Amino acid sequence: MSTVAYELAPPWSISQWMNASEPITLESLRGSVVVLHAFQMLCPGCVAHGIPQAKSIYQAFPADRVKVIGLHTVFEHHDVMGPLALKAFVQEYRLGFPIGIDQSSEKGPIPQTMQAYNMQGTPTLVLIDKTGRIRLHHFGQIDDLRVGAAIGQLLTED
Amino acid sequence: MSTVAYELAPPWSISQWMNASEPITLESLRGSVVVLHAFQMLCPGCVAHGIPQAKSIYQAFPADRVKVIGLHTVFEHHDVMGPLALKAFVQEYRLGFPIGIDQSSEKGPIPQTMQAYNMQGTPTLVLIDKTGRIRLHHFGQIDDLRVGAAIGQLLTED
Amino acid sequence: MSTVAYELAPPWSISQWMNASEPITLESLRGSVVVLHAFQMLCPGCVAHGIPQAKSIYQAFPADRVKVIGLHTVFEHHDVMGPLALKAFVQEYRLGFPIGIDQSSEKGPIPQTMQAYNMQGTPTLVLIDKTGRIRLHHFGQIDDLRVGAAIGQLLTED
Amino acid sequence: MSTVAYELAPPWSISQWMNASEPITLESLRGSVVVLHAFQMLCPGCVAHGIPQAKSIYQAFPADRVKVIGLHTVFEHHDVMGPLALKAFVQEYRLGFPIGIDQSSEKGPIPQTMQAYNMQGTPTLVLIDKTGRIRLHHFGQIDDLRVGAAIGQLLTED
Repeated sequence: MSTVAYELAPPWSISQWMNASEPITLESLRGSVVVLHAFQMLCPGCVAHGIPQAKSIYQAFPADRVKVIGLHTVFEHHDVMGPLALKAFVQEYRLGFPIGIDQSSEKGPIPQTMQAYNMQGTPTLVLIDKTGRIRLHHFGQIDDLRVGAAIGQLLTED
Repeated sequence: MSTVAYELAPPWSISQWMNASEPITLESLRGSVVVLHAFQMLCPGCVAHGIPQAKSIYQAFPADRVKVIGLHTVFEHHDVMGPLALKAFVQEYRLGFPIGIDQSSEKGPIPQTMQAYNMQGTPTLVLIDKTGRIRLHHFGQIDDLRVGAAIGQLLTED
Repeated sequence: MSTVAYELAPPWSISQWMNASEPITLESLRGSVVVLHAFQMLCPGCVAHGIPQAKSIYQAFPADRVKVIGLHTVFEHHDVMGPLALKAFVQEYRLGFPIGIDQSSEKGPIPQTMQAYNMQGTPTLVLIDKTGRIRLHHFGQIDDLRVGAAIGQLLTED
Repeated sequence: MSTVAYELAPPWSISQWMNASEPITLESLRGSVVVLHAFQMLCPGCVAHGIPQAKSIYQAFPADRVKVIGLHTVFEHHDVMGPLALKAFVQEYRLGFPIGIDQSSEKGPIPQTMQAYNMQGTPTLVLIDKTGRIRLHHFGQIDDLRVGAAIGQLLTED
């Protein structure tokens, strides 16, 4: 007997949460499918494709089975994408799902969670299964059909 | 122990096949997920949404695991949506998946397979699982995320 | 003094009109800007772009100043794009502007008006000014901004 | 004899210019058609519709005949839509036309040019003719066909 060994998703380093009454840990989401959407508020591809897709996923699936989590991974223009700017953005774009601000790094422009996940840019979509393992990791635009199929598959797993 | 009893999908009554070397029966597709896309070539909603979605599904999934089948369910304008017209349509719209022409009925305008499935119009999408049971039956536009999720789920079943 | 000599638009050879109480001649439209939209009902680019644009133009401008005229220039699949098929198409796509069926030619597949205008395919958009001269002749997709600008300019001319 | 008296467009109060080697006055643009696009960088309707339309206009018309000018009319979230944030936005969205930052007012949140033009929100499109008069003033989304027609008409005027 053998199984494919999927990588355990690294924990999140978050400096501040929005749309959440308390900090959310990845561990606390075990048993749900987790859709982690990494974005920057001034990233045109995120605004045009990634964020609308995250909103659609948030609306399409039961909230107790699929957890959509935004991750603000600021790796450029740091001075103008701080928490206050993000708060205005979240309000204007009517984002309802929890959003964590990725903890900045002392070593360079790339924040800590973005580094831990080896993300190459924004938008990045990461699907994490009920046991906390990474099952899809996509940088750039990805069509709804494939994302839907992946989520549908993960939902059937124990 | 109990199971939800899904309806067994009725057999197809097809007068002519396109894009198929021989007639295709639903029974011969057991073990695959079947995506049945019912359309009419002069139905604007089919041309704008249903057919592009069927093409996307055909491209997104492995051909041996997901079988996309078009069903030309002519229930109006019969005289101008015959096999020759459909052939030109299939060529112009570059449809590559098998398409069956639903067998006309002697009793009225609605063809036989359309009747057997109680379809209410076009486009209609029917998802049939590996055991031949109807798992989704949708009349009108349906978004890719939901269709993808349903297919993804069915793919995981034995 | 000199003027650019724009070509006088050739007369139309029409075998049948739809959405018109009587035959329409180009001469009878002098004093209006004429938007001639040549299409085939089984041409995907026409259905996706050309026809919606013609409908938008028909809705955006006053009917007495801008005359939108459809021209069904069948040069392929003749046997399945006859008047009955077109009638069903016009009904399903809710086209309200007059549509003339281009008179077929004895010499080949290309109908007579299409030949007279040297059209290269469908969709083709031809803008004719108030004096009956061709001011824009475009094969393929063309954006609304440019079409709007051309119509706006022609409307100001005497 | 009488003429419709179009309102002379008020002068612009600009605190800072981007994409311009020196300050631009409305008076200096006499003889050109001016397309004034008022926006806020965190306004979803601007990002989805207004700004792409302004970019299309900028590309579609000769730069010496149609002057596209962006106006950043910040009337909310002032602290996060300052010049540095706008600079990042302009860079990320690759805006090439000149953009003036509307001068803030001491009396309230609405900046001075926005007040002078009685703009009701963003996006707002203002078309100014060659003599400096306002010919179109639209708040919200407006389709390319109508904008094109208006510009085309203004271009023909002396």
